[in-house]
Formats: sequence, C-alpha cells, structure tokens
Amino acid sequence: MYEKTLSTKHVYKGRILDLDVLEVELTNGVTSMREVVRHHGAVAALCVLPDGRLVLVKQYRKAAERIFLEVVAGLIEEGEDPEDCARREIKEETGYTVDAIEKLISFYPSPGYVDETIQVYLAHLHPAADVLALDHDEHIEVVVLTREEMRRQVATGEICDGKTLVAWLLGEKRIEPDA
Amino acid sequence: MYEKTLSTKHVYKGRILDLDVLEVELTNGVTSMREVVRHHGAVAALCVLPDGRLVLVKQYRKAAERIFLEVVAGLIEEGEDPEDCARREIKEETGYTVDAIEKLISFYPSPGYVDETIQVYLAHLHPAADVLALDHDEHIEVVVLTREEMRRQVATGEICDGKTLVAWLLGEKRIEPDA
Repeated sequence: MYEKTLSTKHVYKGRILDLDVLEVELTNGVTSMREVVRHHGAVAALCVLPDGRLVLVKQYRKAAERIFLEVVAGLIEEGEDPEDCARREIKEETGYTVDAIEKLISFYPSPGYVDETIQVYLAHLHPAADVLALDHDEHIEVVVLTREEMRRQVATGEICDGKTLVAWLLGEKRIEPDA
Repeated sequence: MYEKTLSTKHVYKGRILDLDVLEVELTNGVTSMREVVRHHGAVAALCVLPDGRLVLVKQYRKAAERIFLEVVAGLIEEGEDPEDCARREIKEETGYTVDAIEKLISFYPSPGYVDETIQVYLAHLHPAADVLALDHDEHIEVVVLTREEMRRQVATGEICDGKTLVAWLLGEKRIEPDA
C-alpha cells in the first residue's frame, strides 16, 4: 500500500502553508493526482487550573467565518521543541504559566490532504495569571469553564473544533474527578 | 470579534480543494492576511457490527506519506444529504449496509485555515457484507477490530487521524458495554 510520486507542482508558497499538486502512481498501476497542503505543525494544550476548571480561548476564525472556543494552540516555530512551544503559547494567549505538562497524543487533523500534525498536551497551570502577549494580528479572549460546562458545550455541538475535541476527550480521563 | 474581508485572491481551484488568500481587517483596525483552504465537506462514520466489533479502513495517505487506520469517510457530493453520503461511503468502502445510524457531531478539523466541516455518525451495520465498490484511484483495506484493540491503538498513538479519534471518543460512550 503506497503511492509513488511521479511529479510535483508547487502551486503556492505562503505564510502558514504551501500547496503542492502531485501526480501519483498507485501499486495497481493507476495514476491519479493528489492536492497536498504543507504545514509546519502545531501544538494544542488542554489547560487545567488547580481548582479543576479549564482555561480556553475564544477567537474569530476567518476560514470558517465564525467564533470558536478552543484549547490553547499555536504553530511550532523553526527548531522549537513542541513542549516549549506549548508552554510559550499558554503564556502568550492566557497569561498563565505551566506547573506540569504531559503529552496526550500526536495526531493528523486532516491526513486526506494536509501533512500537519498537532502535538496535544495536558497542562496544569499555576494559579496566578500574568498579562497576555498576543501577536499583533491576534484577537483572543480567555474563557474559564467548569468541566460540567465543557461537557455540556461538547454535547450540544457548541465546541466543534477538532483539536479541542481530541484534547478534551482524551484529557478528561486524566484529570482527577470533579471535587 | 470579527475580521472584515478587504480583498480575496483566488490562488488555486482544484479537485477536492481551492485556496484563497485574503486581506482582512481586525476590529482593532489592524490588517493582516489569511490563507484559507476551501473544501466541500465530508462525512465520517464509526461503524459497529452486531457483535460489537468495529469496521475500519486502512489506506495510504499521500499528504502524510503513511498508512492510516481510519473510520469510514468520504466527500459529500454536490446536493447530497450527509446521512445518505455516510450510508453510501460505508457500502462502497466496506461492503456493509447500515441498519441504524445516528449523528454524533459536526466539527471543523482545522478551522485555523480550512472551512471544511465533517459530519460524524455512529452506524450500526447489518452483519452480511457485500463486495466493495471503490473509486478507481482508491486502494482501501477493511479492518475489523474489537473495542479493546481500538482502545489500545488509540492509547499507543497508532490511531492518529483526527476524525477517527473524534468519532471513537464520542461514539464509544454510545455503544453498549462490552459483552
């Protein structure tokens, strides 16, 4: 089970992604084309306060033309360690520092046409928050939810971002039961 | 919280996706650019046999250059009802027909740069399978797993496709306990 690359056309080179169109040959000899988005990869972190509440971020996502409530996430910089990236993004987007962090999973959000992987962490935060340090073109609002509120928003479909669902559904089992 | 479109450049129009580069203005007056992949949307279905085992599919994903074990999924055709699409994809990729189907969630796999939504279903299959009807450029292998095997492959990270994780983690709770 393999697809051999016969040719690659670089259609676009951009800021957060590139686009290639490939001609491939399947093992049965059939040729086809594959549109492939190249992306450097990201981290996502389910952030938990000492009292068990979750720290999420709200932001407008232009691609979907709507506001999303998501776990903290960000792009890995050139040469950056993914865990360091998670700590940095948490500090920048929420103002909190991390007391303890563990890896939950590494997954592909859309392997059908994107090579991106997202490294997902569970981060236990230090209770005191600092000021935010957002990028100049980021507009993010910090939202604190109880786990019951989180469960309800997943059940109603209000929380509908893939990495947030994966982080929550895997991380929920690792957090101590509700007090 | 909103981003106004100042200009749109259509960079690529393709088979399963298009790429636009937008100039946007944030509510604070800052302008920025957003790379947006347009996609028609897809369905995914966690497929359960009457004996509680799961029917998954294995395929090579060129974008990631590796084989994935995934829930059944496919692109929604022009004007097609998503649930009909799920039934069609299940039949084509596994040979099974659906006895009962319920919606689990609709989610965005990568809202940071793609507008795609995936409608996720839990499908209870009829026990008898028919022959497959794959597209000419699809090479798919049907894999049947017990729920214990599925849990293990999620825990080890072998199952690492976003829609498969979302479908399983939400669907697991809706399937009757292991016999």
